[in-house]
Amino acid sequence: MTSRDLPAPAATGRRGRRPGGDDTRGVIIEAARSAFAAKGYDRASLRGIARDAGVDPALVHHYFKGGKAELFAETLAVPINPAALVERIITGDPDRLGWRVIETFLAVWDAPERRETLTALIRSSMTTDESARMLREYLGREVFGRIAAATGVSDPELGGALAASQVVGMAVMRYIVKVPALAEASNEQVVARLGPVLQHYLMDNEA
Amino acid sequence: MTSRDLPAPAATGRRGRRPGGDDTRGVIIEAARSAFAAKGYDRASLRGIARDAGVDPALVHHYFKGGKAELFAETLAVPINPAALVERIITGDPDRLGWRVIETFLAVWDAPERRETLTALIRSSMTTDESARMLREYLGREVFGRIAAATGVSDPELGGALAASQVVGMAVMRYIVKVPALAEASNEQVVARLGPVLQHYLMDNEA
Repeated sequence: MTSRDLPAPAATGRRGRRPGGDDTRGVIIEAARSAFAAKGYDRASLRGIARDAGVDPALVHHYFKGGKAELFAETLAVPINPAALVERIITGDPDRLGWRVIETFLAVWDAPERRETLTALIRSSMTTDESARMLREYLGREVFGRIAAATGVSDPELGGALAASQVVGMAVMRYIVKVPALAEASNEQVVARLGPVLQHYLMDNEA
Repeated sequence: MTSRDLPAPAATGRRGRRPGGDDTRGVIIEAARSAFAAKGYDRASLRGIARDAGVDPALVHHYFKGGKAELFAETLAVPINPAALVERIITGDPDRLGWRVIETFLAVWDAPERRETLTALIRSSMTTDESARMLREYLGREVFGRIAAATGVSDPELGGALAASQVVGMAVMRYIVKVPALAEASNEQVVARLGPVLQHYLMDNEA
């Protein structure tokens, strides 16, 4: 936030020349998070994000050479480090792993700025290939894939995908479609009902 | 289909006058199904649907006084009568109800023209209130709400909503986001994994 007070870079022609700083990068990510939440993935533009961040568009390209897709991933990765999430989940009583998964998800989701970004990701994953890829790769592989791989469940890829499907379906029906019984349920109720299901997908070798 | 051969109605000014017929209504629904599948809920227009059906737009309004929302519901209701689905599911061995739910859903989903319409419904329910309402009311209340109400499970509304969330989440990850392990799983594998979960949500009184 403090770098909003930095002098604005030259308007054009200095691609990659400005040294920038850690907080400039952070300001761009914050502007991107707001833009994705407000406009969705497709309608947010790098130019608009640069304007909101008070920086030259070239600076956005300098920091995020992967463009909009990389910047979108960053808006998720900064508040939610997948490796730390997974570590937190796979450590502890294996008989309660399913419950920790949904507790952790709800704790992540409950911060308003993340909820908006995650809602935008789920929404746009229905219509744009880039966001669908992000949901597959981020939630499917980095989060649920790693958990399932750590538990020793048979067919961890399918188990991880099924666990992701239940968590995404819950988020869709609770936060986006707002089915009354699920929208009004407490986090504790959701944990009590989804815990054994996620345990089944991620730990049971029976099926 | 045969009413495509009927004489076209007068172009304007005859709202509600033309007697029409059962098959005219059917032709409009078929045109609507194609339009929703091709364009999504928001971009499909009643005018365009009337044009595709070869009828006056006033005739569409005559048959579907609830406008686009009613017509959309009709495109789902015709091939999938919720009452018949529910009857099929709640009849039979109560210990296998969860498995019948997912078998029935996959059988419904597997007809290509329905898959397109249902995919369009799920997609548009993320972004438009009308479609979200339809998903809540159709899948949440008419299908899963009725099943849960019939089983005598405690808190049938939450149980029904959770079952709907797992089925919608599975459809999202299998057919839209296409997480590889779930996209490539056989229907039999999906039934084997989701059956006990839906049984838990719809039948277990433990939680």
